[in-house]
Amino acid sequence: MSEKLWGGRFAKSTDEMINDFQASIGFDKRLYREDIAGSLAHAAMLAACGIISREDEEKIAAGLKAILRDIEEGRFSFDVALEDIHMNIEKRLTDAIGEAGGRLHTARSRNDQVALDMHLYVRREVAAVAEHILDLQRALAGTAAKYRDVIMPGYTHLQRAQPILLAHHLLAYFAMLGRDFDRFAGVWQRADIMPLGAGALAGTTFPIDREFVARRLHFERIYGNSLDAVSDRDYILEFLAAASILMVHLSRLSEEIILWCTREFSFIELDDAHCTGSSMMPQKKNPDVSELVRGKTGRVVGHLMAMLTAVKGLPLAYNKDLQEDKEGLFDAIDTVKFSLAVYARLLRGMKVNREIMRRAVDEDFSNATDLADYLAKKGLPFREAHAVAGRAVQYCIERQKWLKDLTTEEFRALSPLFADDIREAISPEACVKNRNSLGGTSNAQVDRQLEAAEALIESGAKLVADWESRLPEIG
Amino acid sequence: MSEKLWGGRFAKSTDEMINDFQASIGFDKRLYREDIAGSLAHAAMLAACGIISREDEEKIAAGLKAILRDIEEGRFSFDVALEDIHMNIEKRLTDAIGEAGGRLHTARSRNDQVALDMHLYVRREVAAVAEHILDLQRALAGTAAKYRDVIMPGYTHLQRAQPILLAHHLLAYFAMLGRDFDRFAGVWQRADIMPLGAGALAGTTFPIDREFVARRLHFERIYGNSLDAVSDRDYILEFLAAASILMVHLSRLSEEIILWCTREFSFIELDDAHCTGSSMMPQKKNPDVSELVRGKTGRVVGHLMAMLTAVKGLPLAYNKDLQEDKEGLFDAIDTVKFSLAVYARLLRGMKVNREIMRRAVDEDFSNATDLADYLAKKGLPFREAHAVAGRAVQYCIERQKWLKDLTTEEFRALSPLFADDIREAISPEACVKNRNSLGGTSNAQVDRQLEAAEALIESGAKLVADWESRLPEIG
Amino acid sequence: MSEKLWGGRFAKSTDEMINDFQASIGFDKRLYREDIAGSLAHAAMLAACGIISREDEEKIAAGLKAILRDIEEGRFSFDVALEDIHMNIEKRLTDAIGEAGGRLHTARSRNDQVALDMHLYVRREVAAVAEHILDLQRALAGTAAKYRDVIMPGYTHLQRAQPILLAHHLLAYFAMLGRDFDRFAGVWQRADIMPLGAGALAGTTFPIDREFVARRLHFERIYGNSLDAVSDRDYILEFLAAASILMVHLSRLSEEIILWCTREFSFIELDDAHCTGSSMMPQKKNPDVSELVRGKTGRVVGHLMAMLTAVKGLPLAYNKDLQEDKEGLFDAIDTVKFSLAVYARLLRGMKVNREIMRRAVDEDFSNATDLADYLAKKGLPFREAHAVAGRAVQYCIERQKWLKDLTTEEFRALSPLFADDIREAISPEACVKNRNSLGGTSNAQVDRQLEAAEALIESGAKLVADWESRLPEIG
Amino acid sequence: MSEKLWGGRFAKSTDEMINDFQASIGFDKRLYREDIAGSLAHAAMLAACGIISREDEEKIAAGLKAILRDIEEGRFSFDVALEDIHMNIEKRLTDAIGEAGGRLHTARSRNDQVALDMHLYVRREVAAVAEHILDLQRALAGTAAKYRDVIMPGYTHLQRAQPILLAHHLLAYFAMLGRDFDRFAGVWQRADIMPLGAGALAGTTFPIDREFVARRLHFERIYGNSLDAVSDRDYILEFLAAASILMVHLSRLSEEIILWCTREFSFIELDDAHCTGSSMMPQKKNPDVSELVRGKTGRVVGHLMAMLTAVKGLPLAYNKDLQEDKEGLFDAIDTVKFSLAVYARLLRGMKVNREIMRRAVDEDFSNATDLADYLAKKGLPFREAHAVAGRAVQYCIERQKWLKDLTTEEFRALSPLFADDIREAISPEACVKNRNSLGGTSNAQVDRQLEAAEALIESGAKLVADWESRLPEIG
Repeated sequence: MSEKLWGGRFAKSTDEMINDFQASIGFDKRLYREDIAGSLAHAAMLAACGIISREDEEKIAAGLKAILRDIEEGRFSFDVALEDIHMNIEKRLTDAIGEAGGRLHTARSRNDQVALDMHLYVRREVAAVAEHILDLQRALAGTAAKYRDVIMPGYTHLQRAQPILLAHHLLAYFAMLGRDFDRFAGVWQRADIMPLGAGALAGTTFPIDREFVARRLHFERIYGNSLDAVSDRDYILEFLAAASILMVHLSRLSEEIILWCTREFSFIELDDAHCTGSSMMPQKKNPDVSELVRGKTGRVVGHLMAMLTAVKGLPLAYNKDLQEDKEGLFDAIDTVKFSLAVYARLLRGMKVNREIMRRAVDEDFSNATDLADYLAKKGLPFREAHAVAGRAVQYCIERQKWLKDLTTEEFRALSPLFADDIREAISPEACVKNRNSLGGTSNAQVDRQLEAAEALIESGAKLVADWESRLPEIG
Repeated sequence: MSEKLWGGRFAKSTDEMINDFQASIGFDKRLYREDIAGSLAHAAMLAACGIISREDEEKIAAGLKAILRDIEEGRFSFDVALEDIHMNIEKRLTDAIGEAGGRLHTARSRNDQVALDMHLYVRREVAAVAEHILDLQRALAGTAAKYRDVIMPGYTHLQRAQPILLAHHLLAYFAMLGRDFDRFAGVWQRADIMPLGAGALAGTTFPIDREFVARRLHFERIYGNSLDAVSDRDYILEFLAAASILMVHLSRLSEEIILWCTREFSFIELDDAHCTGSSMMPQKKNPDVSELVRGKTGRVVGHLMAMLTAVKGLPLAYNKDLQEDKEGLFDAIDTVKFSLAVYARLLRGMKVNREIMRRAVDEDFSNATDLADYLAKKGLPFREAHAVAGRAVQYCIERQKWLKDLTTEEFRALSPLFADDIREAISPEACVKNRNSLGGTSNAQVDRQLEAAEALIESGAKLVADWESRLPEIG
Repeated sequence: MSEKLWGGRFAKSTDEMINDFQASIGFDKRLYREDIAGSLAHAAMLAACGIISREDEEKIAAGLKAILRDIEEGRFSFDVALEDIHMNIEKRLTDAIGEAGGRLHTARSRNDQVALDMHLYVRREVAAVAEHILDLQRALAGTAAKYRDVIMPGYTHLQRAQPILLAHHLLAYFAMLGRDFDRFAGVWQRADIMPLGAGALAGTTFPIDREFVARRLHFERIYGNSLDAVSDRDYILEFLAAASILMVHLSRLSEEIILWCTREFSFIELDDAHCTGSSMMPQKKNPDVSELVRGKTGRVVGHLMAMLTAVKGLPLAYNKDLQEDKEGLFDAIDTVKFSLAVYARLLRGMKVNREIMRRAVDEDFSNATDLADYLAKKGLPFREAHAVAGRAVQYCIERQKWLKDLTTEEFRALSPLFADDIREAISPEACVKNRNSLGGTSNAQVDRQLEAAEALIESGAKLVADWESRLPEIG
Repeated sequence: MSEKLWGGRFAKSTDEMINDFQASIGFDKRLYREDIAGSLAHAAMLAACGIISREDEEKIAAGLKAILRDIEEGRFSFDVALEDIHMNIEKRLTDAIGEAGGRLHTARSRNDQVALDMHLYVRREVAAVAEHILDLQRALAGTAAKYRDVIMPGYTHLQRAQPILLAHHLLAYFAMLGRDFDRFAGVWQRADIMPLGAGALAGTTFPIDREFVARRLHFERIYGNSLDAVSDRDYILEFLAAASILMVHLSRLSEEIILWCTREFSFIELDDAHCTGSSMMPQKKNPDVSELVRGKTGRVVGHLMAMLTAVKGLPLAYNKDLQEDKEGLFDAIDTVKFSLAVYARLLRGMKVNREIMRRAVDEDFSNATDLADYLAKKGLPFREAHAVAGRAVQYCIERQKWLKDLTTEEFRALSPLFADDIREAISPEACVKNRNSLGGTSNAQVDRQLEAAEALIESGAKLVADWESRLPEIG
C-alpha cells in the first residue's frame, strides 16, 4: 500500500528511483512561505463561506504558523517521499492537528495550489528584481554625474566615431534598464492574477468565494477561466524573456568594461576587491565579474529556451512537464539579482582614467563628421561635404597627421569654404558641446538626462513600494 | 574608385563577394514605405528649421513620392551594389533631382534612419498582428457559442479528469490570446519611440527639431539618449518574445486539434479544404495546418534565440551585427500573421462530433472528484473522502463497471454517507453544472465568459483602431 | 592583504559578495577525483623529468591520496574563499606537506588544470551515458521480442496509416538510440585529447613531457596548440548537442507512451510503481515519468543554447565566461542518465493490451494502400490505383462500412481488376506480412532487426568496456 | 473536385490560403537535382526487379532528363498548387509521357522520396562545407607561415598574459576548424544512409531491391527500420549543431579581428575591398564582414533551436511539422559556406602591423610568468616564486616602470636568487622561444604545427574528393 496522499487506487507504491526523478521538494521548498500564505487565505475563505468550521480554521492557521516557524528555524525535515512542498506541509499539518488538517484541501487541487504559490512568488521576485534595477540605475546615474565632463571617443563598429561624454555613454545603459523595468512591470501585471479556485482544471462544486482570497492576498485580478488558470505559464515565460533581455543589456555593458580594462584601452581601473588574479601569471588583474555576467547571459537565455521548448505542444490542462517551470526560473532570478547587485558595486568602485579618455579623442578622426557638418552649414550639400571630409581624412592618413594638424591652407585646398575657425569647430570640446540636439551628447543635454533620471528612479521606487505593500505577510 | 556614397576615403571598391554578403537590399526593401515616410518627415523638419530651403524640400518630397509610385508599380530596380533600401532610394533621388537630394541626409545618419524605419515598421506590424489576434479570438468565441452546451472530458496529464464544456475549453485559448494581445500592446509602447535625430550615435550639430518629426509621424515619445536610440533593439527582441509565446499557445491548440482528429478521439472533423491527403495512402486526411503551425513554433523561437545571441556582448553603439535584426523578424511576422489567419479559418470550418464527446464522459471515471466532493459536503474530511472515492474506482475497475453502474448498496458498503441521490450527483451534466465557482466550467459561468469575451474584443478593436490612425500615410 | 594564492599584487582582498558570485567550488567539487588524478600524473611527470625531486613527488602523492580519502569520507570542508576545487585541494595539500605542495603547480596553470579535469570527467560520463543507452536499447529489444507478433496501427500525421508490428515500432527507437551512441562516441573522441602542459595559454618554459601524462591518464591524443588547449570547449558543446538530440528522441517516445496510456488509445498500461495519482481526482493514474522526460528535453536544449551563447564572440584564450561550462553540463549529464534509466525501467514494467491494438486495425482504412498495391500489381499505373482506392474509401465512409465489409461485386464496380482474393489481401496480417522489403514491418524483417540489434548491443558494450578500461584509477 | 494527385477521397479542393501556407515548392525546388537523381535510380530499380517494364523505365528516364534541362535552363514554371518539388516534377512527367509516368511512384511514398532527396542534398552540401573549411584552413596556415616570426601579446581575460607568436594564435583557429571538419565527417556518415523503400512508413509490398538503389546512388548503408527511415531528422539536427559550433568559432575569430582593427589595438589592417564606410562619418573603415559573421552566428544557432523545438514531442512516423526541416537548414548551409569563403578572402587580404604587435609586448607585464619560472628553476617553490613575481609587478606599477627596467639590485632586493641574466630571460623573444613544450608557442613548435597542418589539409582533401566521387551525376 502506498503512503502517498493520493494513493487510494494504487496497488503498488511508487518505484523509489521514479520517485526521486519526479519529486520536486528539492527545489520547490523555496516556496514554503507562499504555500503557507496561500493555505491561510484558503482556510479563511473556507470558513467564511461555511465550508469548514471556525474551529477547524483556527487549528489550521495555528498549525501552519507553527510549521512556518519550524521551517524558518531549521527544524523541519523535508521528505522526498512526499514529493513536493505542498504535500510535505499538509502531511505535517495533518499529523499535528488531525482531522481539521484533512479539510484544508477541500475545494482545492495541487494544480491551483501550485499555481497560486508561483504567482505569489513571482510577484515577490519581480519586486526584488525591480529594486535591484533601480539601484543599478542609481549607480549609473551617480557615476555619470561624478564624471560629468569627461570626454571619450564614441564608437560604432568599435571604430572611433565621434567624441562623446562618458556620462552620455553610461546613461544609455540607464535607458536600457528603464525599459527592463517597464517589462518587469508587465510581468507583474500578468503575474498579478489569482488562480485559486480553479481546482484541478474545471472549478469546484463547493460554494467558494474567490474574491475573498484575491482580496486577502492583494491580487488585482482573478483568472476568468479555470483551465487557463492551472495551465498558464505565460508569466514565467515572460519573466524569463524580460530577464534575458536585461542580461543581454548587462552583457553589452560587460563587454565594454572588459574592453576598457584592457591595456590597449586603459580607460578605467576596477577596484582590486572586484577582480581576481592568476594562479600562474603574477601580473594579472582580471575583470572576472564582467566576464561572468557576460557568460551568465547564456544561462538565462538557456532557461527561456528550455521553458519555451517544454511548453510547446502541450495539450490542456495541467501536464507534469510544467513542473519544469521552477528550477530554471529560480536560477534566472538568482542570476539576475546577483548580476545587478555586483554591477552596482562594481560601478561604484570603478576609477575612470579621464586623461587617457580625453587624450584618445585627440588622436583619431572622430571629428570628421564635424568637418562635414561645418561645410554643410556653409551650404555644401551634405553628400558633397561628406566626400570632402573623406578626402581630408585620406590626406591626413597619407601624411600621418590628424585633422587638427592641418593648416588653413591645406583645408582650403580641399574646399574654399573652410576658414580659420575650422580648427576650433573640430576640437573635441566643440564636437561634444555642439551636439545639442535633444538627447545628444552635449553637456546641456546630459544634464537634462541626469535630471530626468532622478525623476524616473523616484517614480519607479514608488511603484515598487506599492507592489511590496501588496505582498502577503505571514507569521 | 568606389561608387559607394560613403566611398570618400577608400582606395579600392568593395570586393563583389563581400558586397553580396553584407548587402541587405534583398530583404530590407520591404521597408520602402517606412523609409520614404521617414525621409518626408525629415525633409519637412529640415525646412521648418531653416536647415534646407523650402524649394529643396518640395523637390525632395516630389522626388520621393515618384520613387514610391515606381516601387509600388514595379518599375524600380533595386541595386545590390547600393547595399540597402536607404542608399537605393537616396541614390535614385539624387539622380532625379540633383543637389537637393544630396541635402536630404543632412543631420541624419543611416544608423538613426534605419532605426526610424524599423520603429515605423514594427508599429505597423504590431497593429496587424493585433487585428489577427482579435479575429482568432472572435472565431474561438463564435465556436464556443455555437457549441455552448457540448460536454466533453477535461484532461490533465492527457488522462480524463473531469467533465467540462467544450466552450470552456475553447475559451481557455481565448484567455491566452488576450494576454498575447496585452504583450503586443507592450511591444507597441516600446516601439512607439522616435529615434531620428540621434545621428550616427551622438546627436547632431544641426539645430533640428525632433519633436516636429515625432508629431508628424505620430510617435508618443522620443529617445532621450542618442546612443541608446541607434543601438536599441529591445522592441524587436520583445516582439520575438511575444511572438514566441503566442506561437507556443497555437502549438498547444494544434496539439489538441491533431488529437481530436485522430480515429481514437474522433471529437472533430476538419473541413476538407483545410486538410491534405497522402501520395501513397488513399484514405488519409491529414490535419496539416495544425502540424505546420506546431512546427513553425520552433521557427519563431529560433528567431528569438538568433537575435538574443546576435546582440549578446555587443559594445555600444551601432555594430553591423545588428543588421541581423531584420530577416528573422520579418519571417516571424509573416509566420505569426499566417498562423493566426489560417486558424481563424480552420475553426470556422470545423465540425464537432458532439455525440462522441458526450458519450466519452459516460465511460470513464472523470466524475470521481464529484463522488469525493459529495462525501466532503456531508462532513467527511476531504482527504478521507478522496480515499473513499479512490477505493470506489478500484472496486469498479476490478468489476469492469463505471461508477454510475454501482447500486446504492455497493456505494454504502464504501461509506454509509452515500444515499440514493449519489448517481444523480455524478452525472456528467451535474458535474458540469455544479462547478459553478467563478471561472468554472458550469453553463452559467461559461455564459459569463462569453459576455466578457465580447467586451474584450470590442475594447481591443478600439485600441487597434487608435494605433492604426497613427500610422503615417504617404503618397 | 589577500589570502588568495594569486594575491601577490593585490592591495585589497576580494569583496565578499563578488567572491560568492565568482566562486565555483559549489559545483566544481564534483571534479575532485579528476583533479587529484590529474595532479598525481602531473607530479609523477615533474619528477620523471627532474623538475621536482622524487621525495617531493612522494609527499605530494601521499598528501593527495589523504585528501581523496578525506573527501570521500566526508571529512573535507570546502572553503568558498578558495574559489574552486583546484585551490581547495592545493591549499590543503600545502598546509599538510609544506614546501613540496608549493611545487606541485610548477609548469601548470589553472587554465590547463581545469581543462584536464573536464576532459577526464567528460570521458567518464560519456562512458556512463553510453552504458545507459545500451541498457535502454536492451529494454526496447526485449519488449519488442516479447510482443513480437502484436499488430497495431502505424501512424503518419497521427492518422492511422498502415498496420505494423509493435516490435517494428519499438525498434525504430532502438535505431535512434544507435545513432545517439555513435554521436557520443564522437564526443569521446573529441574529449580524448590531453590539454595539460598548455600552461596559462602558451606552453611552459619547463622541460616537461606531455606524452608521459597522456600515457599515464590513457589519452589517445595531445592538443597540438596550447591556446586551443585552454580555450576549447567543443567537446562540451558537442556533448550537449548529442544529449539534446537524444532527449528529443526520448521526448518522441514519451509522447507516444502518453498517447498510448490515454483512455482513447488504451494500448498499454504502465506499472503502478511508475505512475502517480492526483491530490484531488481519485481515479487518476498519470504517466508522469514520460511527461517529465518530455519536459526535461527543454532543459537539456536550454543548456546547449546557454553554452553556445556563452562562448559566442569570446576572444582567445581563456575567459572567465567559460566557467559557465560546468553547471549546465553537469545537469545535462544527470538528466540524460536519469531519463535513460527510468525509461529502461518503465518499458520493462509496461503491459501491452494486444487485443485493443489488434482490434484497432480492423476498424480503420489503414489497409487502403494494400488495395492500391493490389491493383498496381495487376498492371494499373500506381496513380490510377491510388485514385481507385481513394474512391473505395469514400464509398465506405458514405455507407459507414470498412473495406473488408465490401462484397466482391462492390469492389468490381470500382475496378474490374478486383477478384475474390482481395479481402484476404487486405487483412491486417497480410498487410504486415507482405511488407517484406528490407527494413519493412513484416515478421521476417522484424526478426532480422532483432538479430541485428543483439549484435549491435554486443559491439557497443565492447567499445564501452574499452573506454572504461582507460579511465584513470586513483587511491 | 480536387486537382491534387492525392485528391481521390476529398469532396472539396484545398482552401487557397491553406495551400499557400502548406506548400513547400517555394523553397524545396532547390532539391530538383536530387529529386530527379532519386527518381532515375528508383525507376531503374523497378525495371530491374520487373515491377515496371524496360520501356516504361526508358520513357521515365528520358522524361526526367528533359525536365532537368528545362529547370536548369529556366523553362520550368513551378506551380504552388502542386505543393512541392516532387509533385511538380511528377505531374509534368505524366503530362509529358502519359501512363508510364503514373507508374514511377509505384512502391514509393513522398515520405521516403523526400527523405532520399534530403540525404542526397545533405551529403552534397557536407562535401561543399568541408571544402570551404579546408580552404579557410589553408588561408590560416598561409597567413601564419607568412608572419611566422611576428610576436604579439597573448591574452587571457583580454588582459595581456604572455608573449606569443601571431602564427601560434592563428593556428589555434586552424585546430578548431579541424574539429569542425571531423564533426561534419560525422554528419556525412549519418547522412550516408539510404531511406528509399521505406514507403510511407512500413515498407512496401512490392518486391523491390533497396541495395540496387543504394549502389546506384553510392550510399554506404541502408536504413534498417522503415519507420525510422521516414522520421529520422538526426542528420539535419547534427548538421545544424556542427554548423553552430563552427559559427561560434568564426564568431571568436571575428571578435579578434574587430578588436585588432580598433584604433586602440591597431594590430592589423584589412583590405579596403573588405570593409565599408559610413554614410555620415567620412573617416570610418568598418570591419563589417567580421561583425556580420559574428551576428550570423545567432542565425545558425537559431535554426538549430528551431529544429530541436520542431521535432520535440512528435510521435512516429512522419508528421507535417518535419517540413520545417528545410528552410533553416538551407539558410544555415548558405550562411556557413558564405562565412567561410569571405573569411578566407579576408585573411588573404589582411596586413599585419608587425611593429605595433612587437612593441606591445615591450610595454606590459606579460613576462611576469617567466620571472616566476626563473626563480622556480632556481629551486624556489612555484607558489613562492609566483608571489615574488607579483611583488615585482607591484613594485614596478608604483614606480611606473616595466620589469625590464629594473636593475639587478632592485631584482635582488626582491629575491637573492636573481642574477644578471634575468633581463635576458624575460625578453619577449626569450619568453617565446623558451615555451618549447609540445604545442607551445616557441618558433620550433610552431614550425612543427605548420608541417602538421599541411598534412592534415592533404588528408582532408582526399576524404572530400572521395565523398564527391560518390555524389550522383545526372543529366
